[in-house]
Amino acid sequence: MERVEIAIIGTGPGGVSAALTACNRNKRIMLLGSREMSAKVAKAHEIRNYPGLPFVRGADMAAAFRDQLDRMGIEITEKRVGAVYAMGDYFALQAGEEMIEAEAVILATGVVQAKPLPGEEELLGRGVSYCATCDAPLYRGKTTAVIAYSPSEEKEAVFLNEVCARVIYFPMYKEEPTLPESVEIIREKAVEIAQADGRRIVKTEDGEYFADGVFVLREAVAPGQLVPGLETEGQHVKVNRKMETSLPGVFACGDITGTPYQYVKAAGEGNVAAISAAAYVDRLRRSE
Amino acid sequence: MERVEIAIIGTGPGGVSAALTACNRNKRIMLLGSREMSAKVAKAHEIRNYPGLPFVRGADMAAAFRDQLDRMGIEITEKRVGAVYAMGDYFALQAGEEMIEAEAVILATGVVQAKPLPGEEELLGRGVSYCATCDAPLYRGKTTAVIAYSPSEEKEAVFLNEVCARVIYFPMYKEEPTLPESVEIIREKAVEIAQADGRRIVKTEDGEYFADGVFVLREAVAPGQLVPGLETEGQHVKVNRKMETSLPGVFACGDITGTPYQYVKAAGEGNVAAISAAAYVDRLRRSE
Repeated sequence: MERVEIAIIGTGPGGVSAALTACNRNKRIMLLGSREMSAKVAKAHEIRNYPGLPFVRGADMAAAFRDQLDRMGIEITEKRVGAVYAMGDYFALQAGEEMIEAEAVILATGVVQAKPLPGEEELLGRGVSYCATCDAPLYRGKTTAVIAYSPSEEKEAVFLNEVCARVIYFPMYKEEPTLPESVEIIREKAVEIAQADGRRIVKTEDGEYFADGVFVLREAVAPGQLVPGLETEGQHVKVNRKMETSLPGVFACGDITGTPYQYVKAAGEGNVAAISAAAYVDRLRRSE
Repeated sequence: MERVEIAIIGTGPGGVSAALTACNRNKRIMLLGSREMSAKVAKAHEIRNYPGLPFVRGADMAAAFRDQLDRMGIEITEKRVGAVYAMGDYFALQAGEEMIEAEAVILATGVVQAKPLPGEEELLGRGVSYCATCDAPLYRGKTTAVIAYSPSEEKEAVFLNEVCARVIYFPMYKEEPTLPESVEIIREKAVEIAQADGRRIVKTEDGEYFADGVFVLREAVAPGQLVPGLETEGQHVKVNRKMETSLPGVFACGDITGTPYQYVKAAGEGNVAAISAAAYVDRLRRSE
């Protein structure tokens, strides 16, 4: 696969803005996210302070952003990036079984609102996974549990259901899941992940469920988990006014950089991140 | 006049965004600028990277912003602020002969692209003025010269023409001025301001013109001139990620804070400045 110049992770207002500006600067980009854009945007009832889109419903804002990307010829690559590794003069983005190479990376993945479940971090990589596409093969013919924080995760459960013998699905959101009948939907709030006798246990407020593997699926992952070595402040990435992070070549924008969690703030930062990333790529080119 | 909570100076994307968010936060605001919004925006041919407004002409963006302010019930106060003075627990904004009081101020006045003319700064307040409304009475029945950097200054020349015996107008822009016949339009580039024998001289590339007073009218004034005591970096105001300047209660957004000079960057910063200003005003209220 051809190495892109700038990989942009996330399709909220920050990522969209970064993509538009990077494209305007004639950079070869890859925009990774969802054609459903951002669950936070899509769910917003009415946004009153986004300049240019008065009293806009979140769903309409998402549609406007998607249409604008289409008109600019920017595709959304619907892959979930599990990790970003600094490789010297480029970055390797792990997306399922695939590795994507990019000279610069813009993190626009939003903020993790929920704290990790007790046991989640301890068991990560040892029966707990954030990526169905990556780790489903490990559970072929076995039982998996899915703790999902938004309806956009349902397609992951559909995929697991094709591979695993049994899928137990815990929707941590209000909407009614649309899933194959063979997926067991448990309407109980997951509160802890534990293990015993070589199996994982999802504990809910009402019971305990055994599984070989547990998938915890959120729109955003903690930035320090996503990019090893990145300097963070709590759930946020440390950035300066140029949207540079502590790692040269890695930029960030939007909710991941801290409060206020506002659409136009994210869009403004995406613009700055893209301009800084483009300048970084240009400098690489000159030093070659 | 009632003291407002937040005065916002400038009606480009930064000022508009700040006004929308401050209004959303239920603050009593005054938005000072022009119903023509920003000359920079209005002149933009096509903007391709403003999320939500694909391939938008500058004039259409300005109209969209104006309509949105109207729908939110936000008025534009068409006054030019000449100076902002810190008065302890509030600020006094000099607008012509009027003083406006505000608890917090957001500077969104854009960036001064042009360097001052030779002689301009030396003679400021001694025959050179930036504000026709303020200083026209000094030149009743006399001769004034107007060095104007955008067509929106023409109304100032119209006003001077009512008061002064003679007005010489130097358009420093391409458009054809629309002015009363009695205003003398000189299509020569002003290059220096000097004085001799108690009169001012506007030197152009082609000649010299005598006047009692010279008005230099630009959309933006240098931030250090606008707000005495403000920490600046060249033509820019120093801000942190909260859009706080060196003066508590003074915030800034948009081109005035530095590059990149981009519409959505300005809008994003306006949002952050408004949220920071609202929090500042809330703290004042609590400490009363």
